[in-house]
Amino acid sequence: MNGADKLCQTLLANDVDVCFANPGTSEMHFVAALDRRQEMRCILGLFEGVVTGAADGYARMAEKPAATLLHLGPGLANGLANLHNAKRADTPMVNIVGDHATTHLALDAPLTTDIVGLATPMSHWVRSTPSAAQVGADAAEAIGVARSAPGKIATLILPADAAWSEVPEDHQDKIEVATFQPPEAPNAAAIKQAADVIRSGRQTLMLLGGTAMRAGALEIAGRISKHCGINLMASRSTPRTERGAGRVVLDRVPYVVDHAVKVLAPFEEIILVGSGQPVAFFLYPDKPGAIAAPGAQFTELGGVHHNLELALEMLADELGVPADVQPKLMPLGDNSLPDAGAITPPSFSAAVVHAMPENAIICDESITFSQAISNLTMQAPPHDLLQLTGGSIGIGIPLCIGAAIACPDRRVIALQADGSGMYTVQGLWTQARENLNITTIILANRRYQILHGELANVGGGTAGVNAARMLNLDDPDLDWVSLARGFGIPAVKVDCAQALAQEIKKAVQHDGPYLIEALI
Amino acid sequence: MNGADKLCQTLLANDVDVCFANPGTSEMHFVAALDRRQEMRCILGLFEGVVTGAADGYARMAEKPAATLLHLGPGLANGLANLHNAKRADTPMVNIVGDHATTHLALDAPLTTDIVGLATPMSHWVRSTPSAAQVGADAAEAIGVARSAPGKIATLILPADAAWSEVPEDHQDKIEVATFQPPEAPNAAAIKQAADVIRSGRQTLMLLGGTAMRAGALEIAGRISKHCGINLMASRSTPRTERGAGRVVLDRVPYVVDHAVKVLAPFEEIILVGSGQPVAFFLYPDKPGAIAAPGAQFTELGGVHHNLELALEMLADELGVPADVQPKLMPLGDNSLPDAGAITPPSFSAAVVHAMPENAIICDESITFSQAISNLTMQAPPHDLLQLTGGSIGIGIPLCIGAAIACPDRRVIALQADGSGMYTVQGLWTQARENLNITTIILANRRYQILHGELANVGGGTAGVNAARMLNLDDPDLDWVSLARGFGIPAVKVDCAQALAQEIKKAVQHDGPYLIEALI
Repeated sequence: MNGADKLCQTLLANDVDVCFANPGTSEMHFVAALDRRQEMRCILGLFEGVVTGAADGYARMAEKPAATLLHLGPGLANGLANLHNAKRADTPMVNIVGDHATTHLALDAPLTTDIVGLATPMSHWVRSTPSAAQVGADAAEAIGVARSAPGKIATLILPADAAWSEVPEDHQDKIEVATFQPPEAPNAAAIKQAADVIRSGRQTLMLLGGTAMRAGALEIAGRISKHCGINLMASRSTPRTERGAGRVVLDRVPYVVDHAVKVLAPFEEIILVGSGQPVAFFLYPDKPGAIAAPGAQFTELGGVHHNLELALEMLADELGVPADVQPKLMPLGDNSLPDAGAITPPSFSAAVVHAMPENAIICDESITFSQAISNLTMQAPPHDLLQLTGGSIGIGIPLCIGAAIACPDRRVIALQADGSGMYTVQGLWTQARENLNITTIILANRRYQILHGELANVGGGTAGVNAARMLNLDDPDLDWVSLARGFGIPAVKVDCAQALAQEIKKAVQHDGPYLIEALI
Repeated sequence: MNGADKLCQTLLANDVDVCFANPGTSEMHFVAALDRRQEMRCILGLFEGVVTGAADGYARMAEKPAATLLHLGPGLANGLANLHNAKRADTPMVNIVGDHATTHLALDAPLTTDIVGLATPMSHWVRSTPSAAQVGADAAEAIGVARSAPGKIATLILPADAAWSEVPEDHQDKIEVATFQPPEAPNAAAIKQAADVIRSGRQTLMLLGGTAMRAGALEIAGRISKHCGINLMASRSTPRTERGAGRVVLDRVPYVVDHAVKVLAPFEEIILVGSGQPVAFFLYPDKPGAIAAPGAQFTELGGVHHNLELALEMLADELGVPADVQPKLMPLGDNSLPDAGAITPPSFSAAVVHAMPENAIICDESITFSQAISNLTMQAPPHDLLQLTGGSIGIGIPLCIGAAIACPDRRVIALQADGSGMYTVQGLWTQARENLNITTIILANRRYQILHGELANVGGGTAGVNAARMLNLDDPDLDWVSLARGFGIPAVKVDCAQALAQEIKKAVQHDGPYLIEALI
C-alpha cells in the first residue's frame, strides 16, 4: 500500500466517494490508486474551474464534501476562482493537489510553483503532507476541517514521493477517522437579546443567510415575522435556498446600492441569522459601503456555524409564537403557457413557472437578469436555489454538474448569463459525458450588461469604442447551439417566450443535458 | 485627470499600447479612461487565461510588454496559469488588477480577496498603488521592471479609489518615464572559461535557451560548433526560436527522462547559454532528477539576462572561429503534396512543410505529438516557434492571439493538442472578433495521451475504468468543427494527411482565423 492508496482509503472510509478531477503526471500514482478503488466515482472536468465549481454544487446538495484532484500549482490556480465562491458559500471541500516529489523541488523544474502560497487565499486549511506515513492522518484532518460547521475548504498537497512511497506496515490497516465540529448549539444570551429587540417595538429586520435559508428554518422565521410584525429579508446571495410555491416569501437585499439603501432605510434594528452585516458589493464615489441605515443596531442571533433552525425555534419559544401561526407563503404562480412574444424578465419567468417540475434545483448565474426575475421565478413549484456567493463568474455550468451528481433523481435548471457561461463553457462536455439531467437556459444578451450599468454609474456614460469592445460580446455573436453540440449536448435557440416554455418542458423530460439559447 | 487617466497616460507614454482585458466593476473607471484614449488597443478575452496567454504571445513577438486588465483576485486567479508560463518564458508583462476601494476592504464584500497573496507566486513585482498621486510613478516602475532583461511579470493593483480620485495638479502633466535594465554585457571571465572548456577537448555540449535561440545567435553557435567540434542542443522549451530551412540545426533535450539521460550521457562538459541545468520535467521513482551525466561540469557563458548573441560572438572570437565557417543548416524539406493516408507524425509534418508560408509563427502546444514532429516541421520555410515554457496547458489558443496582434503581416499556425486546447477554448472567439490570421490545427486524439504514458511509467499499466474516465476525452467526442463555428470561426475536420495539407494551404490564404480538426 502506497501513500496514494492510503489517501484513497481514508477518503472512502470517511464517506468522500466522489472525486472531481483533472490530473497530471504528478498525480499519476493517485490516479492508479483510484483505479484500484472503483467505489470512488471519478468525474473529469476539462478545466479545473469546472472541477472546483462542480465540487461546490455537489457539497451544497449532498451536504458532504467531494474531493477534487488538481495538477500542481497551475491546476490549482485554474480552480481558485470557484474555490473563492465555494469559500464564500461555506462549502465543505477537500482539494488534493499533487506536487513534485520533495527531492525534485530544489531543481526548479518548469512546473514548480509555490502551491501553499496559491492555496492559502482560497482555503481555510492548507498542508503539504510530508510522507506516505503521514498521508492518512493528514487526509483525515483535511476531511475533518472541511466538514466542520459551517463547511470549509481544506487543501491537501500530495508530493509525488509521498504518493508513491510505501506506507509503514503499522499504518496500513488503521483507518484514520475524521473528527469534525457539528453546528454549534445556539447561544442562549443571543436569543434573549434578539427577543428583547423584537419586543422593543422598534423597526426590526431579520436578515437571513446560510442554513437559515432552508425550508424548516424559514418556516419558523416566517411565523416569528407574522406574529411579531417584524420584516424578513435574505442576504444578497446564499448558498442554498429552499423556496418556491408553498414556502416562506422573502425578498433579498438588492444588488444596486441605491435600492439596497432604500429598502434597508426603515430598519433601526437588524437581527442577523447566518448573515453578515449588509455591505455594498462594490464601493462607488459618494455612496456608502455599509448600506444599513446609519445608526442601525445589529444583533447576531447566530452565525453560519450555529444550528440556525434551532436558534430560530428557541427564539420563537422565547417570544411565545404559537405553533399554528401561518407565515406568509408564496402561492403557486400562473403556470399556463405564456403567450408568444419577446423574452423579457416577466415572460421569461412565466416560461420557467410553466415548465418547471416539482423539486428541481435552480443554479442561478443570471447576473443582470437575476434581480428582475427572482421574485417571479419564486412562484414556481418548490425547489432549491443555488446562487453565486462570491461574485466570481463562471460557476453556473459546473455548479449544475455537482448538483446533478448529488441528486440524480432531481432536475437541474441553469439560469445562465452568456458572459459568465463562457468562463467555464468546457463544463458542458462533463454534463454530456455523465449524461446529467441538466437544462441550461443561456440568457443571451451578448454583452456584459451589468458593466454597461456600472460604466454609467461611474460617470462613463455610454460606452465609446474601447469600452464597447470590452463590454460587448458581439461581432461575432456566440452561437451557443453550435457550441453545445460541439460538446455533445442537444440545443436550440429561441427568441419567443412561448417557444422557451415549450423547450424547457421538453428539456426537463429529456434524458440527459439540453441547452436552450434564449435571445433576450 | 483621475488616477485611471494617469495610468493610461503612463502606459501609452512608455509604449505600452495594447491592453488585453476582461474588466469588471472595480475597473470601470479605468475602462472609462481607456475609452478616452483610443490609441490604446483594447482586446477582450472571454476568460482571463486568454488575456494573460495573449499578452505572453504578444510580448514574445513584439519584444515589449502588453498590459492586461484583470478583475480583482478571482480575475487574476483565472489568469495565473498562463502568467506562470509567461514567467517561465521571461516574458515582459504589466498586469493591472483592480481592487475594491481601500476603505471598502474592511467590510469584506463578497469579492474581497488577498490579491497580493495571489499575485506573488506568479509575479516578479507586485504593488498595490495607494493613491491617485502615486499611480503614475508606480505604473512607470511596473513597466520598468517588466522591461528589464530578460523580461519580468509586474503586477500593479489599482484600488477603485486610486482610480477615481483626482490626481494632484502638479502630477498631471509630468510624464513618468520607465527606466529599465537592458541585457547585461557578457562576462569576460565566463567567456574565457567557456573557451578553455571547449579547448580542453573533453566531450562538450553547448545548451542554448532564451535569446540564444534567435537566428543571429544560433548562427554563431553553429559556427563554433562546426569549427570546434562541440555539440549544440536547445533546452526543452524556449520562448521563441527562429528556426526552419536555412537556419542552424539543433535538437532539443527530450521530455522522456530515459531518452534525455541517454542523449546527455556523453557530455563531460556542458556550457550553458541562456539555459538552466537540464532537469527532469517530473521525478519518477528510481530515475534521476538532474539528467546530465553524473559528474558533468557546468560552465555558464551567460544567463537569460545577458546579451547572449554578443557573448557567443565574443566566444567565437576568443576561439578564433573564422567568419566564413559554414554552420550546419537545415535544408528545406520536400514540400510536395503528401499522399492520402492517415495523419501520423511524419505525414502531419509533411503537410505542414507543404503548406506553410515563409515567415510564419508556429505556436506549439502539441504535447505528445511534439517530440515526434519537432525535427520534421523544422524543415519548413524559416519561421518562429513559440513553445509552452511552463508546462501549464492552455496557452496555445491565446498565444496565437498575441502573436497575431504583434505581427499582423505574418501567418500564425497553432499546433494544438485537443486536451490542452479545451482549457482556453474561449480564445477562439477573440481570434474571430479581431479577425486574426491564425490557422489552428487541432490534433484530436481524444485523450490526454501523455498521461497514458505516464500511468504506464508509474506502474499503473493500462488504464482501468477510473483512470480511463480521467485520461480520455471520449464519450462523447468533442466536435471541434461545431465548437469553432460557435465561436465564429470557419472549420473543417480531416483524417487524411493530403486533405490536411490542402486545408492548411487554404487556411493560410484565408482572411481571418480558420480551424482544422485533424483526427490522429
